Amino acid sequence: MNAPDVVLRDVTLRDGLQDEAPIATADKLAIYEALVAAGVIDLELTSFVRPDRVPAMADAEAMCAATDHDGAPTRWGLVLNLRGAQRALDAGLDHLQYVVSVSDTHSRHNAGASTDDAVAGLAAVVAEAAPRGATVEVTLATAFGCPYELQIDAGRVVEVATACTAAGATAIGLADTIGVAIPSEVAHLIDVVRPEVGVPIGVHLHDTRGLGIANALTAIEHGVRRVDGSVGGLGGCPFAPGASGNLALEDLAHALEASGVSTGVDLDALIAAAHVATDAVGRSVGSKVGVAGPRFAATATPG
Amino acid sequence: MNAPDVVLRDVTLRDGLQDEAPIATADKLAIYEALVAAGVIDLELTSFVRPDRVPAMADAEAMCAATDHDGAPTRWGLVLNLRGAQRALDAGLDHLQYVVSVSDTHSRHNAGASTDDAVAGLAAVVAEAAPRGATVEVTLATAFGCPYELQIDAGRVVEVATACTAAGATAIGLADTIGVAIPSEVAHLIDVVRPEVGVPIGVHLHDTRGLGIANALTAIEHGVRRVDGSVGGLGGCPFAPGASGNLALEDLAHALEASGVSTGVDLDALIAAAHVATDAVGRSVGSKVGVAGPRFAATATPG
Repeated sequence: MNAPDVVLRDVTLRDGLQDEAPIATADKLAIYEALVAAGVIDLELTSFVRPDRVPAMADAEAMCAATDHDGAPTRWGLVLNLRGAQRALDAGLDHLQYVVSVSDTHSRHNAGASTDDAVAGLAAVVAEAAPRGATVEVTLATAFGCPYELQIDAGRVVEVATACTAAGATAIGLADTIGVAIPSEVAHLIDVVRPEVGVPIGVHLHDTRGLGIANALTAIEHGVRRVDGSVGGLGGCPFAPGASGNLALEDLAHALEASGVSTGVDLDALIAAAHVATDAVGRSVGSKVGVAGPRFAATATPG
Repeated sequence: MNAPDVVLRDVTLRDGLQDEAPIATADKLAIYEALVAAGVIDLELTSFVRPDRVPAMADAEAMCAATDHDGAPTRWGLVLNLRGAQRALDAGLDHLQYVVSVSDTHSRHNAGASTDDAVAGLAAVVAEAAPRGATVEVTLATAFGCPYELQIDAGRVVEVATACTAAGATAIGLADTIGVAIPSEVAHLIDVVRPEVGVPIGVHLHDTRGLGIANALTAIEHGVRRVDGSVGGLGGCPFAPGASGNLALEDLAHALEASGVSTGVDLDALIAAAHVATDAVGRSVGSKVGVAGPRFAATATPG
């Protein structure tokens, strides 16, 4: 199989579910199977955080054990500190996603530490992970704006990003945690961060204000080759007021497929996965393509 | 007041309502007043079509009479034929929007005439309108795709567009009637049509597959200075199966305002208008910004 032009990283099982009432591990595994059946090769599987703060992720170890099979997609475990990293490594994951919020205020709310302390904590996580053959990527939360500090200076993002790569991060994800980015800001931030960090840049976008797809397409135009999204647009951030609506992966897959950009996913199967996921949490499908269907295919035989 | 960089043409009262159960003229006027209060300077007021086919537009003459005041926005009346044009002119409108569907099959369904016959009918409409001081713009329906004929050749769009300007159309609107366009196609179609027609080009987009905003921003990048949309994303086309969701005007207004592109509208007032309009038809607001609020403003005081 050829590598896709753009990797769609599914975040349904982590970002999509973390703010929902916990669902059974078996239901999560049904979502996982549907994603794998759709050709998803890269996904956030879970997070290793305090179960009292995020009860929906309390089955992190069980999810890792149940998905440890030949041909599994790249499985990411989100961690906020060394304790979480140890749990993820003990659970058998070799892709850790460490979160640093560029906004100090958001960092204290989300991770209980300042931004600088979070960056300092990264070195210990890398030191634990590297000898065990695991890589650590950093997701820069609130890179495009913060519910507390509002606009974030791009220079500060560069500063935090380079500190993270200096500490051993193998990739940087720029996260629009609260869905405030506009295309020109996406373009600018990627253009200033990428040359400084020397590692791949991904983007994590929310469609809170209708710009998710426009921002994703802009990011891809500016060289990004991995974009996060959840099927059905599930998810949000429980500690970022106003955050809602991950970029719906099937809307992005549809836009890219129509544009001749390969993603490796089967769109119809991805839409089916969106229904599995949204049914599991009792929500309706929050994507446009999930409702209307792909262009032309769905309208070829009008009634 | 300076002219805005981009004119947002509101289509709520026509495209947004035509497929709904008829509402009282007084309720439409409340929507109209809310739009005017938000700074809308250009709007589709109604259509002059057969009341038995589109009962929601049966009060076209009453709407014109009630909105004939000093400082009124540019009021467009949609017409499909000479009879409709005569009604619009008799009702006092001097901006007629004549629809030609580029797809022959859609044209027969929507207007009861082939594309060529629709173009031929334009000359008679112009001949009627011009002596009465009215201008006639042509909206090219299905310019980006058709529910029956699927993809539409850009060369055919150019052919129909130039035939329309030759017959006296003073502007051309490119309509993505069923919401299938992608940004690269929007860019291409504008680039090939514009130099051939020598009149302003507008776009009418639907967000059926999540690309409404991306397509609108692309159109503006390629020189378009007027974009249609409805508050709350109301509307669709009753004779185009699968069509749903006009581009939500407040989502576009928000994206442009954040990008430093002036539109002349007051975003908060436009969101208020979206609530007036969706309440009137008993639907929820179908925009992202109408739900989440503007970026930063809405999240400045998180709970």
